[in-house]
Amino acid sequence: MIKPLIWENNVLKLIDQRKLPLTEVYVDVTNLEECFDSIKDMVVRGAPLIGFTALWGMVLDIKNNPSYKFDDIKKSADYLKSARPTAVNLAYEVDRAVKLAEDSLETYEQRLRVFAQDQMDLLFEHNLAMAKIAEKDLKEKFGDKKLRLMTLCNTGALACGPMGTALGVISHLASQGKIEMVYASETRPYLQGGRLTAYELCKEKIPHKITVEGAFSYILESNLVDAIFIGADRIVKNGDTANKIGSSTLAIVAKYYGVPFYVVAPTSSFDLNSSTGDEIEIELRPEEEILNALSSRIAPKESHALNPSFDVTRAKNITGIICEKGLISAPISSENLLKIVEA
Amino acid sequence: MIKPLIWENNVLKLIDQRKLPLTEVYVDVTNLEECFDSIKDMVVRGAPLIGFTALWGMVLDIKNNPSYKFDDIKKSADYLKSARPTAVNLAYEVDRAVKLAEDSLETYEQRLRVFAQDQMDLLFEHNLAMAKIAEKDLKEKFGDKKLRLMTLCNTGALACGPMGTALGVISHLASQGKIEMVYASETRPYLQGGRLTAYELCKEKIPHKITVEGAFSYILESNLVDAIFIGADRIVKNGDTANKIGSSTLAIVAKYYGVPFYVVAPTSSFDLNSSTGDEIEIELRPEEEILNALSSRIAPKESHALNPSFDVTRAKNITGIICEKGLISAPISSENLLKIVEA
Repeated sequence: MIKPLIWENNVLKLIDQRKLPLTEVYVDVTNLEECFDSIKDMVVRGAPLIGFTALWGMVLDIKNNPSYKFDDIKKSADYLKSARPTAVNLAYEVDRAVKLAEDSLETYEQRLRVFAQDQMDLLFEHNLAMAKIAEKDLKEKFGDKKLRLMTLCNTGALACGPMGTALGVISHLASQGKIEMVYASETRPYLQGGRLTAYELCKEKIPHKITVEGAFSYILESNLVDAIFIGADRIVKNGDTANKIGSSTLAIVAKYYGVPFYVVAPTSSFDLNSSTGDEIEIELRPEEEILNALSSRIAPKESHALNPSFDVTRAKNITGIICEKGLISAPISSENLLKIVEA
Repeated sequence: MIKPLIWENNVLKLIDQRKLPLTEVYVDVTNLEECFDSIKDMVVRGAPLIGFTALWGMVLDIKNNPSYKFDDIKKSADYLKSARPTAVNLAYEVDRAVKLAEDSLETYEQRLRVFAQDQMDLLFEHNLAMAKIAEKDLKEKFGDKKLRLMTLCNTGALACGPMGTALGVISHLASQGKIEMVYASETRPYLQGGRLTAYELCKEKIPHKITVEGAFSYILESNLVDAIFIGADRIVKNGDTANKIGSSTLAIVAKYYGVPFYVVAPTSSFDLNSSTGDEIEIELRPEEEILNALSSRIAPKESHALNPSFDVTRAKNITGIICEKGLISAPISSENLLKIVEA
């Protein structure tokens, strides 16, 4: 599996995701400023990976400045958080690093290293647990048949660090020799599927074809896909799921053709304070992502675009939600979701 | 309305569609070879427009060679047809030009000119008739409300010559002040929507936003669209419709949210020899259209793509099929389709 983040000889090595898939180069991060830049300039992307990068940045900072007082650490933390102010995992992980210093500064560097590694190990464990739950359910449905799976966006190691969610399921199944073909939907406008998921599939030598979102109906009607796996940015109490734009369209088409549609996300992605997807606000991103391609204008100068970043897949169109604690099966409701998540 | 083909002072002027939307330049065609090149090199696209271009190419050829015998004309025709061997309209129109010569070579140039102009006038009449049928049906459904419509691919004057089909409906309604907003789905991989439809909408000053195919569900669930209009490459006897990839996905999502979904195509696009969409073979186009953007590779070198050019929208997901003879309303069947088409 790809390692987008490597901690080695007191240097943080990050694969430069802006240059993938055609150029594979690691950026060395040796201090707080370089860590800030790598987050701000999107060398790293994916909520969990950004959080881990920040944790190792805090480790580098205290290693470089062993005489730091608590206020210095707090200042570094605020600086790192400002690299991407809306990234929830970034603030979450950095605040936890500060909390470790609050208790005591003794052996802080060492405790922080252990903490950073523990968080990555924990996510790996959770993601592996989810992959095994998916494997078991697929075995019940399809027996030992080699599977043809479909996914959208990038939910692999490149987004998560140690192991992916939906793409983690696919990696795991491939390692067991259980994959025949993966259809990677390209995921306009940013093409995370055609660039990053395809890159991970290449690295793991998993047979795959890139397709356009418009081909959802063609592919499912042609009976090319046994099951679909996507990740989640947020899952609310009734099972409604916010994920990359295209997910809800795919779920509706999957339901129409009777193709199982799974959401894979750790319990940390569940928001039990929201009752339904109607409470999820959808971020509208810059029009230029649609109007330009490779930084060149493709649309007329006077044209506008509507660029919602996410959509809400309704629980009734989901076959199963898989978290590290288990599988929430259709018909999905607040009741059977809480039974698993709060177990 | 844009004029992609102008016959003026014995010169055929074609807007170079490869350079749209950012550069608007006409190519002068003065002889058969230049006509062949403009078709082969895709200066023109769109089945009807290719056919008309060929007819004017035949006019130029006989004007330049008044001493031609029938065999020379036949030879020129075969040469033109070889520019795009799979374009049905090209062969159809060129064969009709040859047929005019078969009867007699007297006043052939003059008769051919009249014939070419008549074909364009007839398509304009048919397209205008379809637009008026759509207008009437929309008025019954929505009264005098200004409409928010959605379309896919390019089905405007750029494809048809004198006036478009689905985009022709939108142009016509806009000329009556009845359009509030048009959502132009960009239509990956070739981006006919984001480039060509957006260009036509700009030229006619019709308010519009370009969207990605993945946003179908978001847009329709958000209640941004009153009705959807698409064209057709082929409509078979039971109403199943082959059209640009993405159409069937959009129709399924539209049905899910209860948004009316119309197909607009002249009776010449109906294939009454096929019973259902299962008999339609779907062309698979080169993988590079997906793997590259603006001729630069964006996907990993080892990746493959699946690039179906069309899909089949099932009749049960269509609200109405509009041809110049009338509206075939849901539930669409062979019986009520034939009643209109064969009237």
